[in-house]
Formats: sequence, C-alpha cells, structure tokens
Amino acid sequence: MFPNKRMQGMVGRRVHIEMKGEKSVLEGVLISVDDYLNLHLNGANEIENGERKRLLGSVVVRGNNVVLINPMKE
Amino acid sequence: MFPNKRMQGMVGRRVHIEMKGEKSVLEGVLISVDDYLNLHLNGANEIENGERKRLLGSVVVRGNNVVLINPMKE
Amino acid sequence: MFPNKRMQGMVGRRVHIEMKGEKSVLEGVLISVDDYLNLHLNGANEIENGERKRLLGSVVVRGNNVVLINPMKE
Amino acid sequence: MFPNKRMQGMVGRRVHIEMKGEKSVLEGVLISVDDYLNLHLNGANEIENGERKRLLGSVVVRGNNVVLINPMKE
Amino acid sequence: MFPNKRMQGMVGRRVHIEMKGEKSVLEGVLISVDDYLNLHLNGANEIENGERKRLLGSVVVRGNNVVLINPMKE
Amino acid sequence: MFPNKRMQGMVGRRVHIEMKGEKSVLEGVLISVDDYLNLHLNGANEIENGERKRLLGSVVVRGNNVVLINPMKE
Repeated sequence: MFPNKRMQGMVGRRVHIEMKGEKSVLEGVLISVDDYLNLHLNGANEIENGERKRLLGSVVVRGNNVVLINPMKE
Repeated sequence: MFPNKRMQGMVGRRVHIEMKGEKSVLEGVLISVDDYLNLHLNGANEIENGERKRLLGSVVVRGNNVVLINPMKE
Repeated sequence: MFPNKRMQGMVGRRVHIEMKGEKSVLEGVLISVDDYLNLHLNGANEIENGERKRLLGSVVVRGNNVVLINPMKE
Repeated sequence: MFPNKRMQGMVGRRVHIEMKGEKSVLEGVLISVDDYLNLHLNGANEIENGERKRLLGSVVVRGNNVVLINPMKE
Repeated sequence: MFPNKRMQGMVGRRVHIEMKGEKSVLEGVLISVDDYLNLHLNGANEIENGERKRLLGSVVVRGNNVVLINPMKE
Repeated sequence: MFPNKRMQGMVGRRVHIEMKGEKSVLEGVLISVDDYLNLHLNGANEIENGERKRLLGSVVVRGNNVVLINPMKE
C-alpha cells in the first residue's frame, strides 16, 4: 500500500501529527488529505508533553511541514 | 472537502497562521489563496504571546513556510 | 487578486522581505518576481533591529526561503 | 542503481531513518515508498541515543523531511 | 529581467551566496545555474566573519538551500 | 556544464556532502544521483570535526536536504 493510499485509509480517524520545528504535536480527526499530504483536520488540538495546550478546531496543515503521521488507537 | 477547497472557504474571513521557524503568528483577512497555499492577506498583524507586535497591512505569505491555518471566531 | 498577481503589483516598489531562519530582513526595490516567488531586487539592504547592517545592492532571493513580503510605505 | 530503485530494494526490510530537525531517529519495516521518498513503515519506533523512546507502530513519513535512509543489518 | 535571467547574467563572475541555516557564506566563480537555482561553482571558499574558513574548490549547491545570491564587486 | 551534469561527473568518486541542519557531514562513494540530487552512496561515513563518527555503509540521501557536494581529492 503506497504512502498516499495509507493516508486515505486514515480519513475519518483520529491522527497524531508531528510537524517540523515544533515542540508540540497535533491531534484531530482527519477530514481529507491530498497528494502533497496537505491535511484538513476537525477538532484539532495542539498537544505539548502529553497535555492539551490549545484547541484549534478546524485546521489546514501544509504537507511539507508534516514530519510524520500515525493513526491513534481508538 | 479537500484541503485546498477548505482554504477557499476561508476567503474573506480572518485567519490565524502559524509559520515555520517563527515565534510570532500572523492574523489577517484572507484575500486569496492559490494551490501552493501562497496567501494574500489584508490588515495583517504579527502577534506574539497574544499581543500585537507589528502592523503589516497587505502581505503575501509563501505557502511552503505556512505550518497551519485556521479560521478565527467572529 | 491571487498572491502572484499581488506580487506583480509590487514591481517597481520598495518591499520588506522576511526570510526563513534569518534574524535580519531585506529591503529593496522589487525588479522582478516569478511564479516561485524568486525575487530580483536592486538597492537591497540587510536590516537588523531597524538598522542597516549591510548593503547588498543587486540580489536574487530564492522564493522558498521567503516567509513574507509586504510593500513599504512611500 | 538510481536512488529510487535503491529505495525499492529496501521494501520489506528494517530501515534506519534520520529526519530533519529531529534528535531522534526512526526504525521500522519499510512497507512502501513513492517517488518523493514518502515512506510507509510498520512497527516503527522512535529511537534516541540508541534507546527506544516511543512505539509508533504504523506511520507515514513525509519524504522532504527525510535526511537519509539506510537498511539495517539483519 | 526575471530572477533566472538575472542569474544567467552572473555566470563567469564571482558571487556571494548565503545558505539556509549556515553561519558561513560561500564565495566562488559561478560556472552554471539551472532553473531551480542549483549552482556549480569553481574556486569556492567557505567564509565566516569575513575570513576564509575552508577551500572547497569545485562545488555543487542545491538551489532550495540558497537564501540569496549577489555578484561581488570586481 | 550544468549542475546536474557536474554531479553525473562525480559518479564513482568519493564525495563530501554537507546536509541541512546537521553538524556532521557525509563522505562516501557516489553510486548514483537523480535530477532532484537524491544520492545513493556506498561506504558512507558520518564525519564530525574531521573524525569518523559512524559507519553508515549503503545510504540514500534526500536531495532537498543536501546543502552542497564536492568531490574529494584522491
């Protein structure tokens, strides 16, 4: 399964996202993803040291600044 | 809704933008956005620790240096 | 007005440029700009804390390292 | 053997990945890789100073943030 | 004159190059440049605080890591 | 000679590679290089302050994270 197909399989699930040059990570429900790994999330939160730092809600993330994405256990 | 469609839906609204390698964030009215997430904002301000640091006015932001964008509550 | 059209409208004007990972900013007259936001400036200066640090003169700036551009008041 | 062919030859093997701006490295089984070097790994772990810091499991890594990849000895 | 045409006009001249995330700068004779601003230099030196730190000789520089280029006075 | 042609001329030779955001450099035999400057090296070593820090062996390096490449004297 190619990386972009793997991403499509995460749509509708909560995902954990590490971004370049950020100490905090993002968690939210993946609404959509395109071929550049640009992401649209709902109910997104910024998490630092395991604690919720800020509620972002609906957010678009630029793919090139995403380091890694993994689905969260549900 | 794909990430670029989600962005188009923010045109005309105030948005909050986090940029790569910057402590401050940008807030302004989104005038236009292209497929690279290059942004044109009016009435933009640089915000640091929740306070207005500098009035930028009309500004173009390079998409690859945008980490995330979310619409502000109105 | 799309971001690249907005940039074309700044040609011939003095612009203020913030670059990625640089404390100093650039100011100069925008001679040309292409679709990648690569810039050609004349009379460019490197500015740090509001003071001229270095005269660069004619300079080409790589678009992906530009964070934001805004026209200077004249 | 071109770099992307070399990568295809690592599919199914454990790989070691260094990422931009991260102290920790990733290790996991390479499930797939595309032409941008986007990677899909299973059984991925984040490793810091040679010790397992965090189990990530299934993870997608954005190619532009990969610095280098090498196959692990088995 | 578009930025890439401006670059072509520097071929054969000594140029000064600032690179992303590097304290030192490069100086050398520009042998060739392509549309990505990848550069081939001869007689290149790494310069730190105005002093020659290291002789590199023939070097290829990746365009996306170039912040700015300007021709040196001769 | 365009930068990518210059790179092709280094195939089979030992090269020195500086990477973005890394204190250490890479040295190894260049096996192949593509148009993005993605590199495949054999016998690669990570070098810090002139000393071998780690043997990597066969390694693929992502082109956008390469700052500069020069051939080593033999």
